[in-house]
Amino acid sequence: MIFVGFGFLMTFLQRYGFSSVGFNFLLAAFGIQWALLMQGWFHSYSEGYIHVGVENLINADFCVGSVCVAFGAVLGKVSPVQLLIMTLFQVTLFSVNEFILLSLLKVKDAGGSMTIHTFGAYFGLTVTWILYRPSLHQSKERQSSVYHSDLFAMIGTLFLWMYWPSFNSAVSKHGDAQHRAAINTYCSLAACVLTSVALSSALHKKGKLDMVHIQNATLAGGVAVGTAAEMMLMPYGSLIVGFICGIISTLGFVYLTPFLESRLRIQDTCGIHNLHGLPGLIGGIVGAVTASCANASGKFQAAGIFVSLAMALVGGIIVGIILKLPFWGQPADENCFEDSVYWEMPEELKSTVLHPEDSTLKPSEP
Amino acid sequence: MIFVGFGFLMTFLQRYGFSSVGFNFLLAAFGIQWALLMQGWFHSYSEGYIHVGVENLINADFCVGSVCVAFGAVLGKVSPVQLLIMTLFQVTLFSVNEFILLSLLKVKDAGGSMTIHTFGAYFGLTVTWILYRPSLHQSKERQSSVYHSDLFAMIGTLFLWMYWPSFNSAVSKHGDAQHRAAINTYCSLAACVLTSVALSSALHKKGKLDMVHIQNATLAGGVAVGTAAEMMLMPYGSLIVGFICGIISTLGFVYLTPFLESRLRIQDTCGIHNLHGLPGLIGGIVGAVTASCANASGKFQAAGIFVSLAMALVGGIIVGIILKLPFWGQPADENCFEDSVYWEMPEELKSTVLHPEDSTLKPSEP
Amino acid sequence: MIFVGFGFLMTFLQRYGFSSVGFNFLLAAFGIQWALLMQGWFHSYSEGYIHVGVENLINADFCVGSVCVAFGAVLGKVSPVQLLIMTLFQVTLFSVNEFILLSLLKVKDAGGSMTIHTFGAYFGLTVTWILYRPSLHQSKERQSSVYHSDLFAMIGTLFLWMYWPSFNSAVSKHGDAQHRAAINTYCSLAACVLTSVALSSALHKKGKLDMVHIQNATLAGGVAVGTAAEMMLMPYGSLIVGFICGIISTLGFVYLTPFLESRLRIQDTCGIHNLHGLPGLIGGIVGAVTASCANASGKFQAAGIFVSLAMALVGGIIVGIILKLPFWGQPADENCFEDSVYWEMPEELKSTVLHPEDSTLKPSEP
Repeated sequence: MIFVGFGFLMTFLQRYGFSSVGFNFLLAAFGIQWALLMQGWFHSYSEGYIHVGVENLINADFCVGSVCVAFGAVLGKVSPVQLLIMTLFQVTLFSVNEFILLSLLKVKDAGGSMTIHTFGAYFGLTVTWILYRPSLHQSKERQSSVYHSDLFAMIGTLFLWMYWPSFNSAVSKHGDAQHRAAINTYCSLAACVLTSVALSSALHKKGKLDMVHIQNATLAGGVAVGTAAEMMLMPYGSLIVGFICGIISTLGFVYLTPFLESRLRIQDTCGIHNLHGLPGLIGGIVGAVTASCANASGKFQAAGIFVSLAMALVGGIIVGIILKLPFWGQPADENCFEDSVYWEMPEELKSTVLHPEDSTLKPSEP
Repeated sequence: MIFVGFGFLMTFLQRYGFSSVGFNFLLAAFGIQWALLMQGWFHSYSEGYIHVGVENLINADFCVGSVCVAFGAVLGKVSPVQLLIMTLFQVTLFSVNEFILLSLLKVKDAGGSMTIHTFGAYFGLTVTWILYRPSLHQSKERQSSVYHSDLFAMIGTLFLWMYWPSFNSAVSKHGDAQHRAAINTYCSLAACVLTSVALSSALHKKGKLDMVHIQNATLAGGVAVGTAAEMMLMPYGSLIVGFICGIISTLGFVYLTPFLESRLRIQDTCGIHNLHGLPGLIGGIVGAVTASCANASGKFQAAGIFVSLAMALVGGIIVGIILKLPFWGQPADENCFEDSVYWEMPEELKSTVLHPEDSTLKPSEP
Repeated sequence: MIFVGFGFLMTFLQRYGFSSVGFNFLLAAFGIQWALLMQGWFHSYSEGYIHVGVENLINADFCVGSVCVAFGAVLGKVSPVQLLIMTLFQVTLFSVNEFILLSLLKVKDAGGSMTIHTFGAYFGLTVTWILYRPSLHQSKERQSSVYHSDLFAMIGTLFLWMYWPSFNSAVSKHGDAQHRAAINTYCSLAACVLTSVALSSALHKKGKLDMVHIQNATLAGGVAVGTAAEMMLMPYGSLIVGFICGIISTLGFVYLTPFLESRLRIQDTCGIHNLHGLPGLIGGIVGAVTASCANASGKFQAAGIFVSLAMALVGGIIVGIILKLPFWGQPADENCFEDSVYWEMPEELKSTVLHPEDSTLKPSEP
């Protein structure tokens, strides 16, 4: 799911398909190994050995999911070396944050609304804020999709959509809690599709649908029930959460992303703030409220949101400053969103040189 | 399976990929919620609550499968609003039909040859018959495939093929019946591929293969063993069923679909009559015969076929007449099979205006 | 997995997508039926009946996997009739080889490093060596990829990658051995991705990545732990195996494949020697060493490697000679890697005639 889903979701850019899938593959493979070690030290270390089971692999997958979320914000503007460094730090921070939330605060977060989505999104947004590129408009023409790249992205969307119920219920206890998590996620996702489509059409001046909203906003419902999925959130509760998230996420794509870019200098390539940031926060709040209704642990849930946010902001600033160092082979502003900087291209695209001074395409990295 | 399989199977049209995947996604998300409610009222309603379990989700998926089948017949000729209305009615009728067959007639139909495929196909065909467009030839040039759209469609085919054994065995009793259903389906599908390929080549004047047959006829074997899959149909029985279905389905694509369009005014975009209609009928008959051999319930099975057909025809006429009302935003004849009517398109395709009077592209729908 | 994974992995050729997916589908469907019969006679025949269970289907799938491997070597140069004949013989030989290894030599080979990969690869290489085409350079321009065909191939890669842990653990005993097999495979695959990417960049004069390596070499780690996956190969052992295989496989693509083609007259279209041949051998050796450490059965494991190689070479020569007979409808040298020889093509590509003497495109086969 991590590989196919996130990989293809990011192929919507017309000349960045190789990098989207390939770099996602690379960072996921690296991140999983590092996460196995990190999470092993925190959770299953005894007598000098780390005990590895299938559950550890699932947890490592979740950790990498958070890196993939952050990758969405910086997509097209960083080199593979920068990505690996970001993965190295983010996995470490993720493990610390997860340890604080799950082991110290005893927070429930089965689907990772807080640990994966909120943390990943605000971490990525902080990094991209530090890495702000004022002249990014020079590669604006490649920052859009073509017909087939949008269809490839839909493969990613549908994959994520299909496997989200399993994702949210993977680490729940077998039996009732797991079934509840899967069913709640399913309901929320289904409701979210309807409001996303309706609002996408309503906000367009000719009533047309926008593929970006269908690819992204339809998934927000799954993010938002992450924390509460295994709790006694009834199906109608999930439907309401999905309903609201579809609206907020689509509104975010239409109004908030351009605002973030022009005013706050946050260039969010995939709009992860709308798909993971806001729905993650909503999910954390829904979880806190649902937990308060059942027993008294609501305030720890709320504390979990703030700890995740704080870790994301502080960590994002530090990692962003490290990545700003000039020797990681980052692409020039006019070569962003361009596969040929890092990939040997098929013949057909070699001839379509983007800029006369082709030699500048070569990054400084070996 | 419903989302990836059916969605991508229908992407073969060159300029209708967004709508195929997107509308399928929309109607599936809506249909599942409505089906959960409808089937809940019929089957698991007690003391004012509907009890939702994983099995209900699977049944709702099946119900939506039937809507996706019908969508194949009207693909490219209806607006999203029409689709939602069709889904609303079809899910309702499906639930009534399923209740009559499974609860009143005590029919066995594990893989849904009758309830899903026969009902869905003849419902869709009746609707498209009522919605007949005499000037559809005006958008004929877009009613064909391009190279990459055929490859996207193969993703759908292979997905459906792979998951069909699970599909047919999903609601069977665990253990022997479930294994039997999976193995029988597998054998039938494998046999069906061989005869489809052989006949596709044999019917072409130069011996070439037709992608449409490979995409569709190869799946007919799975449809046809739907009813009998969990019965004591031995593997050789399944092979024979698959063998025959491959032949009938391919013949249907070559001879029957053009005949239906020119003589009976049934414009069947995806050829669902060959993939779901005929194999569904065969499946119902095979089920009745197999059941007769085992015990005396064969006549109820046969009655199930006729009830499904009657429901499909009567329901299809009513729904077709409702959809013919002129205010649902249906596309004009010259704008059928065209994404840009309902979708914000990437830059590359915006320039290729199809008709000078571009303003007419806008549907009447908001 | 067999259908989507192998089918799409081979779609990287620009004008051979239909054939890659379609022929793979055809031979898999045929091969599974034949393998069910063959393996049934060898393993589960009693009292005149073959007993078919889900395990038999998995084993038949494995057998077909071996045919798909060999298909990779001859891809683009054989007709569907030749493929079916090759499948017929290879499945038979596979079953005999499997019987010798598993039943007579009592070799452990859970993930099929020897039975599937080594046998399949060297069988395919021998066949393509016999079928050597000295004038293949005439269709050289079609033996490369285009942008979207590489993305389709990545679907195949990611699918194989994702399901490889299940593949290697499918026939292991439930419980510990199965978990061990999945975790070992996972670790090996993850390590393999990193070294493949690193070496792909290091071997390019400008430091760019090559899509072919990412598509193929990243999977070598899964092949190589096939035999040893369920043994007490610890995670760090798997990481080392994956690490080494990524290096060997990438080096193979860069240096060995061109050498094989120019010196040994082995035209290996997909580079299966690097993805299946070498890693399969490594896997067999790793298995033999691991088994030696645990008990005394190491020499039988080693014998298994030689039996597989011998069967592959002798069988490959015989089948190659049969396929060289001139009446199987093989394409002319200038029409290799070309879909339009066997497929009815969409309009857009019909106009781009490849050679003036279009009539010669028609194969001699009906």
